[in-house]
Amino acid sequence: MALQSGDNEKPISFGYNSMSWKPKSGTGSYWTLLGLRLLAALAAAVATLVMALNKETKTFVVATIGTTPVNLTLTAKFQHTPAFVFFVIANTMACFHNLVMIIVDFLGTKFEHKGHLRYLMPAILDMLNVALVSGGANAAAFMAEVGKNGNSHARWDKICDKFDKFCDHGAGALIASFVALALMLIISVISILKLRANSKN
Amino acid sequence: MALQSGDNEKPISFGYNSMSWKPKSGTGSYWTLLGLRLLAALAAAVATLVMALNKETKTFVVATIGTTPVNLTLTAKFQHTPAFVFFVIANTMACFHNLVMIIVDFLGTKFEHKGHLRYLMPAILDMLNVALVSGGANAAAFMAEVGKNGNSHARWDKICDKFDKFCDHGAGALIASFVALALMLIISVISILKLRANSKN
Repeated sequence: MALQSGDNEKPISFGYNSMSWKPKSGTGSYWTLLGLRLLAALAAAVATLVMALNKETKTFVVATIGTTPVNLTLTAKFQHTPAFVFFVIANTMACFHNLVMIIVDFLGTKFEHKGHLRYLMPAILDMLNVALVSGGANAAAFMAEVGKNGNSHARWDKICDKFDKFCDHGAGALIASFVALALMLIISVISILKLRANSKN
Repeated sequence: MALQSGDNEKPISFGYNSMSWKPKSGTGSYWTLLGLRLLAALAAAVATLVMALNKETKTFVVATIGTTPVNLTLTAKFQHTPAFVFFVIANTMACFHNLVMIIVDFLGTKFEHKGHLRYLMPAILDMLNVALVSGGANAAAFMAEVGKNGNSHARWDKICDKFDKFCDHGAGALIASFVALALMLIISVISILKLRANSKN
């Protein structure tokens, strides 16, 4: 904020110009990108946590000997399905990627870094991150589909009729991950546009 | 090739300069990108065809009544698994994307098109295509893993012990798709580098 003294037309300068942490141009897009990255990191973190904490234990009566029921206790965990493990890894990396990019962008702006890689690296890394999140979210989504509907041709029975809570939480994690993917696609486009705009100068 | 006549220092001009179909600079990277796009389109086409033509029919003896065996004929098709259908769609689109990009790049170069979108659109579209191929390839890979190893926790039996040819062909399609994905990642990086290089001029 530029405070103005009564008789002096010149704004009071605090001498921070060289260390200004806001970019001189495109401040709006800077904040937009920051907000989108925070939202994407949040969505990926939610996806990771909901999936990683997803566990349901149920006891089924499988037989009766005389009048004594024979119980079978089964646990559904995300670790049992490789696609869900990959989902957790991909979303964790997406969360960290966005947080690191926010820090790098902040430092780059703070110290007026004019390196060649300032706009190039985010554009490339965002693209790689999109590939990662897309792979994780789609693999988990199609695996979840088998869990929900089964596959009669392969004789794989659905499990969501037994582990309904596990499936509900999984669906929540998937929604969060696809929100993260959508945000990452937008962020990647913005990174490419920023690279183009800043290469022009 | 610039032919030179004996007494004339000036190379013979064929008057093709204005319609030259090679870019004036970066011819090497032009051919590299063209080659990579052709390879990616080929790999995606192979992945699509091998998966789309993947079908195996087998007859199993499930019971014997007296001396008469009771046969059950089962068919494994890619259409039975949604992940494999998505795989085929994603690879088909990746193949077309690369072919269209080659044509657009060729036309852009031929007519010396200087539009703003010439280098921006490939960078963005390649990134979106990477997301698509990554999603398709990963979804199919994790589904294939269940087919190969089963999932004892969900009581999903492996099917590759019965449909070995189906699984071999599926593995081939997956390898081709991951080759296409690797090429698309390289192509996407090159597109971003080209955008940066050409925005600078």
